[in-house]
Amino acid sequence: MSRAPQRNKDSQTVAPRELRLRVYAGDAIAMGPGKADLLEAIDRTGSISAAGRELGISYKRCWDLVETMNTSFREPLVATAAGGSRGGGTVLTDCGREVLAQFRHMEEQARTAVADEMVRFRDLLR
Amino acid sequence: MSRAPQRNKDSQTVAPRELRLRVYAGDAIAMGPGKADLLEAIDRTGSISAAGRELGISYKRCWDLVETMNTSFREPLVATAAGGSRGGGTVLTDCGREVLAQFRHMEEQARTAVADEMVRFRDLLR
Repeated sequence: MSRAPQRNKDSQTVAPRELRLRVYAGDAIAMGPGKADLLEAIDRTGSISAAGRELGISYKRCWDLVETMNTSFREPLVATAAGGSRGGGTVLTDCGREVLAQFRHMEEQARTAVADEMVRFRDLLR
Repeated sequence: MSRAPQRNKDSQTVAPRELRLRVYAGDAIAMGPGKADLLEAIDRTGSISAAGRELGISYKRCWDLVETMNTSFREPLVATAAGGSRGGGTVLTDCGREVLAQFRHMEEQARTAVADEMVRFRDLLR
């Protein structure tokens, strides 16, 4: 009985840092791994400042990322309730949820597509 | 007759900068888009210095990249003929050709896997 090569179809065989997907709008990155992480953190915390703390990035940087996203897509991805102070009342819009879900799905599809080959490729490593 | 959404299965719908694949060996990047470009340039020119000029990167930087690749894989990917002076007699080994081909194929597979979805995703852009 021959020994079958070990295969793993799990997309986890391709680490996040090994496959990075970015969607450009002109020269701006409309969506990428960091922006997707930020959307998830905003969704979790309901706050841009809390999301920034969680990810270790400044409030200013978070707002710049949100602004790039909000102006790159047809509709804003992140909405802050009127009258809200810093850190309060921030939510993903329906468009934000859709963009985030589609982006994560594309990342998953890309990782799954190369997972088997990656296992064989790594056999060439020392 | 309904108007079908425009689809494009051509992997070119995902630009090189939009999907970047990197294979790590520990914390070092054993293979990535820049190293693959360098291997192709070395193969074309037969010379590390000519490859560097073509890519706009220094000779020192090229050698560092080659050294990382040569020590990350089981066999060297690039060989320089004994007695060769700078810029002469440098070739890809069989292992180098195999690694390069497999890496480019994985990039292609990943791009193809997301090409359709990317077209739909871009419809969400302004």
